[in-house]
Amino acid sequence: MSSGKILVAQGGGPTAVINQSMVGVALEARRFQNVTRIYGALHGVRGIVNEDFLDLTQETSHNLELVAATPSSALGSTRDKPDMAYCRSIFDVLRAHEIEHFFYIGGNDSADTVRIVSEQARQAGYPLRCIHIPKTIDNDLVGNDHTPGFPSAARFVAQAFAGANLDNAALPGVYVGVVMGRHAGFLTAASALGKKFPDDGPHLIYLPERTFELERFLADVKATYERHGRCVIAVSEGIHDASGQPVATLLAKEIERDQHGNVQLSGTGALADLLCDEIKGKLGIKRVRGDTFGYLQRSFIGCVSDVDQREAREVGEKAVQFAMWGDRDGSVAIKRTGFYSVDYELMPLDQVAGKTRTMEDEFISESGTDVTDAFRLYLRPLLGSGMPDAFRLRGVAVQKVLKR
Amino acid sequence: MSSGKILVAQGGGPTAVINQSMVGVALEARRFQNVTRIYGALHGVRGIVNEDFLDLTQETSHNLELVAATPSSALGSTRDKPDMAYCRSIFDVLRAHEIEHFFYIGGNDSADTVRIVSEQARQAGYPLRCIHIPKTIDNDLVGNDHTPGFPSAARFVAQAFAGANLDNAALPGVYVGVVMGRHAGFLTAASALGKKFPDDGPHLIYLPERTFELERFLADVKATYERHGRCVIAVSEGIHDASGQPVATLLAKEIERDQHGNVQLSGTGALADLLCDEIKGKLGIKRVRGDTFGYLQRSFIGCVSDVDQREAREVGEKAVQFAMWGDRDGSVAIKRTGFYSVDYELMPLDQVAGKTRTMEDEFISESGTDVTDAFRLYLRPLLGSGMPDAFRLRGVAVQKVLKR
Repeated sequence: MSSGKILVAQGGGPTAVINQSMVGVALEARRFQNVTRIYGALHGVRGIVNEDFLDLTQETSHNLELVAATPSSALGSTRDKPDMAYCRSIFDVLRAHEIEHFFYIGGNDSADTVRIVSEQARQAGYPLRCIHIPKTIDNDLVGNDHTPGFPSAARFVAQAFAGANLDNAALPGVYVGVVMGRHAGFLTAASALGKKFPDDGPHLIYLPERTFELERFLADVKATYERHGRCVIAVSEGIHDASGQPVATLLAKEIERDQHGNVQLSGTGALADLLCDEIKGKLGIKRVRGDTFGYLQRSFIGCVSDVDQREAREVGEKAVQFAMWGDRDGSVAIKRTGFYSVDYELMPLDQVAGKTRTMEDEFISESGTDVTDAFRLYLRPLLGSGMPDAFRLRGVAVQKVLKR
Repeated sequence: MSSGKILVAQGGGPTAVINQSMVGVALEARRFQNVTRIYGALHGVRGIVNEDFLDLTQETSHNLELVAATPSSALGSTRDKPDMAYCRSIFDVLRAHEIEHFFYIGGNDSADTVRIVSEQARQAGYPLRCIHIPKTIDNDLVGNDHTPGFPSAARFVAQAFAGANLDNAALPGVYVGVVMGRHAGFLTAASALGKKFPDDGPHLIYLPERTFELERFLADVKATYERHGRCVIAVSEGIHDASGQPVATLLAKEIERDQHGNVQLSGTGALADLLCDEIKGKLGIKRVRGDTFGYLQRSFIGCVSDVDQREAREVGEKAVQFAMWGDRDGSVAIKRTGFYSVDYELMPLDQVAGKTRTMEDEFISESGTDVTDAFRLYLRPLLGSGMPDAFRLRGVAVQKVLKR
């Protein structure tokens, strides 16, 4: 069994349960007497090169449990992507602090960071165990049935559309809700779980897995509006035309990119406004409203899946166990074993790092604007217990007197 | 005691608890043996002139309870504002159906509708008891301590900012959240209840009760950003310049108005995008994100104040009691009697109809960009039980080795 100091950090976008994984690492590591210190790096890899560490050994278990139940990254996060020089700085710091275990909680970009650090350590002959702990609301990590953070964000999206559908039924018109998800449509597809009655919205769902054609979109909206007298639409921020150009960037004044080369899609209402303007202008429908769910869907406090909470805790605990009892670096992955049960495996880092999973074809309807029952079966158990439910008046009509 | 058929309808924007009031009317009315029928009009006053009634007498109590717990207007709503001819149509229908009690759940526009209908009935010599039941997330009805619907929307806004603050702390930058509220800043001010630790956001709150000056706004943001390394801002959609021109309309391509002459402010991300562009361009801050809470804040399913639920139920029940045991038309109002307790009164319709309450000066800090403790004392009990709480690592720093 290896020993010494361990370091945990959080990278990429925060989620509702990323602190569960961090606390899972911290509390599980306390059970190993050979672990002398548990450090947390502030703001991910940037905190490592800056030697900005908190000593988690000096936190009370009680406070750690409360932090675990708090959304967003308690250690802070970063979008930095280490290159070779950056990694060399990381080693200098790790070596100086005699750290022998590095746990990084994040998405496929963070997995790539772990892979590079792991390779650099091996090349440098430094005894460092590197474990990537999965996290992303996009659900786009390969090899995982799903990723911690996704179920809670999916729950938010499902609840948001369940409410938006009720609102739209009360004051009919067209409602466009734009959901996060650059390449993977899982989160947008979760809007379908907000449907209950057969004529409920979202009536149309646009995913980045399918090419977006404005003319077809307008025809879909027109047909739905004529049928139901209203139309609720879920749109992924990542929808793109046939050339792969994101629709959101077609009208952006300046395109902002992060260090991973990703175009900034969130934090602006431009896509919803563009689509609403098209519907108003081309279809002549007057009441057209667009919302961009933005950061609410990943940071809203008080909307969390209990299934997500416990799995996020367990991937942190399993990461420590894989590190202490195993003999290789890797990425913890969630595997579904029943309806509904899971187990955890340690995957090779290069099988996860930098790769993007998108929605499987079996989850998308033939029309391309709805999900299948296979997707409902996949997602429903992840949303957890206590999902709010919507009810209607049964509606016995009163006979008209004047207009009969 | 009066008798006969009663009619209930819902007007204006839906809320999380408006169905509590409708069900409060329906179930309380069942206790009166002289009530022969309880009708619900579909889509407010429009449903009356169209004779689109549901017979709520034929709904099960069980289903009514489930509908009560469902957000948005189960009977449907409308933005129609009846003129004299419209009201004459209403009377024709009410008389034809022998309806003697009219309950209309809505805001100050709906109260005005009730006032006009009441006057028309009196002038026509038709024995109609008209009661307005308060409802609005804007909390802008005069004579009420607060209005049903506001506490749940305020809870959503407080939870949203609590989460946005955590997200912004993890990935620092500037975050702008735009909140509903045309003339009254109560809902935007509710963002302050998302603050816990002294350096938490929202750091700046912009209300329609104060004139918005772009230069001062930018100076405020710059100062906050320099102090905290980040800045979370709550902005009312109704902020306006010294001439009263809404900032949101300064860049709108075409201005949409409803039948009450109100400019359409929601359902677009333009205001948030405008402010973000100004911050990026003028202050040179790179990571600037804007969210417009839009319809989520009034229709999200699963975020409700239990205090709001029971008060919304009671205003419906009291409306029936005032109608059955009283001798005049009026508007039910919530009066605060303790910390925290309430009672209900019947106010004259013309004291509520068409009037707009705005935030009292004692609720706004001298800076104009924060709330006072008086406001916190006012709002906190309304948010109800089980408010989610945020926790932090206490943060014992590890001594640097390389950079010491």
